[in-house]
Amino acid sequence: MLKVHLNHETAPESWADLQSRLEPGIRLSTGECRSKPDFDILVTGEPTAEDLAGHPRLRAVIVPWVGVPLATLDLMRRFPRIALHNLPYNIGPTAEMAVALLLAAAKRIVPYDQRFRRGYWSGEPPDVPGSVMLDGGLALILGYGRIGRRIALACRGLGMRVVGVRRSPGPADEEHAIADLPALLPQATAFIVCLPHTHETEGMIGERELELLPANAVMVNVARGAIVEEAALYRTLRARRIYAAGIDVWYRYPSAAERKEGLPHPPSAFPFHELDNVVMSPHRAGWSEEKEPARIAELAKMLNAAAHGEPMPYRVDLLRGY
Amino acid sequence: MLKVHLNHETAPESWADLQSRLEPGIRLSTGECRSKPDFDILVTGEPTAEDLAGHPRLRAVIVPWVGVPLATLDLMRRFPRIALHNLPYNIGPTAEMAVALLLAAAKRIVPYDQRFRRGYWSGEPPDVPGSVMLDGGLALILGYGRIGRRIALACRGLGMRVVGVRRSPGPADEEHAIADLPALLPQATAFIVCLPHTHETEGMIGERELELLPANAVMVNVARGAIVEEAALYRTLRARRIYAAGIDVWYRYPSAAERKEGLPHPPSAFPFHELDNVVMSPHRAGWSEEKEPARIAELAKMLNAAAHGEPMPYRVDLLRGY
Repeated sequence: MLKVHLNHETAPESWADLQSRLEPGIRLSTGECRSKPDFDILVTGEPTAEDLAGHPRLRAVIVPWVGVPLATLDLMRRFPRIALHNLPYNIGPTAEMAVALLLAAAKRIVPYDQRFRRGYWSGEPPDVPGSVMLDGGLALILGYGRIGRRIALACRGLGMRVVGVRRSPGPADEEHAIADLPALLPQATAFIVCLPHTHETEGMIGERELELLPANAVMVNVARGAIVEEAALYRTLRARRIYAAGIDVWYRYPSAAERKEGLPHPPSAFPFHELDNVVMSPHRAGWSEEKEPARIAELAKMLNAAAHGEPMPYRVDLLRGY
Repeated sequence: MLKVHLNHETAPESWADLQSRLEPGIRLSTGECRSKPDFDILVTGEPTAEDLAGHPRLRAVIVPWVGVPLATLDLMRRFPRIALHNLPYNIGPTAEMAVALLLAAAKRIVPYDQRFRRGYWSGEPPDVPGSVMLDGGLALILGYGRIGRRIALACRGLGMRVVGVRRSPGPADEEHAIADLPALLPQATAFIVCLPHTHETEGMIGERELELLPANAVMVNVARGAIVEEAALYRTLRARRIYAAGIDVWYRYPSAAERKEGLPHPPSAFPFHELDNVVMSPHRAGWSEEKEPARIAELAKMLNAAAHGEPMPYRVDLLRGY
């Protein structure tokens, strides 16, 4: 009997769907980990040290989406007997949201919509150009894995040239090493951050990097807030040093309890909400109602493999971070 | 000496740019037509009957962008000695804005941004899905000329299949006749209207057509408001019969005088501004500060050709309407 415990919020229909897809040799439980008897696999957004230390049978943790928190990578290194997996089902939604944020920022969709709802046909402030053309520009994609390459396809469809920056560039002409970033940033019309959050990438984009971007640059972050320095990003936008940004990932998150309460919880120490050149998105790039059945199906496939004694896919390399 | 008169608002730097590009044999004037002596070519957004009747030397009108008003087509037919031209420089900006409106509507970018600025991390109303996935869906493009085909490239980059509907479909598999619309509408995830406003296309999309769209459809109009029936569009969105719409072209426009006053001027008799599933854009798809030099350069090329006695490009067929 393979015992699997889920401790992240799952809609009742998803839970029923998962149950129906699991083979008979799997027993599923849910709720707080602490009170539960031992289990083999834990499905969780962010495991605690207690979760890992308190369950001697535990041999694998599955983070049920693509992004693994940096704290989880650090924690898991202390438990080498437990494998870490993720579930990269949300590549399509994340890439599509990145492109939506890019275009919304480049066209000032939100401020024009808000003013026009009050009957005004012109933009404000009047001296800010109403849009940046992406066609013919360079899309600089930081993090050129599966999400980055999917974004690249969309950018090419918009008529952009594409350069992908990654730790280990492949032989393709468009792939560059991280060391090339200072030479590439001044050429970027779109600068899209979509690499994993690791010790190496934390704060990778600071004041110096942002200063290298041209005045008509549009930046997007769908990776993790901590990769881009909070104060530097705020000041760059505040001073209109770049044209605009579309930001899905932030600096201050509500706890699970605060989420349930539903009270306002500002995502930064800085008043990004006062800026007209940022599109604010509440960390939802990777989520899609339509993809939920696919996510559950993939999770079931992983668990069924484990029940058969086969290796589960999507093992995360704790040092690399993805 | 070729005499050219411009009576649409032109920024001083654009005017100077145009002057500098014209060959010596061209004399340029501007302002109200009535008070002006005779001229050969009139550059105007919308000529009046007086403009056309009052200038016997006049042999060509240039509408200095892509969209020719239906009233202009009708009027020009009464003056067969005067040729009508347009200036389709703004294909790129229009197509890019169409894709921006499509993605903004499909991802509910505006309502999420507005709520998140007040600190709320969740969408509202809670029972409305937060997004529609375009990847894998069908983009149905009504009007498959240069703008439509440019939009098609971007939709393919997003992973969509494309069908283009036009009056005279070419041999390509993706091109369909207007008669196929009822069979195609139920399959559309994106339905993008980008055909010219003619007597044939006026009111082409009414209640019957909108009812054929599926519940997850996202509609975009960057053509002319009158192609889509105002009340039918409002009611469809109000009832959430389709997922959302991105609308750049409207039903009530401010006059030039009202524009100068800058007072609010609602774009419809219906309160679209109360709806959370419409992205409202004040007829700006075709405009781009960055493309202004290209527009002026193209206009200069047309006028220089006329000065040499060569035919000007972009002649509009008054019966076809483009």
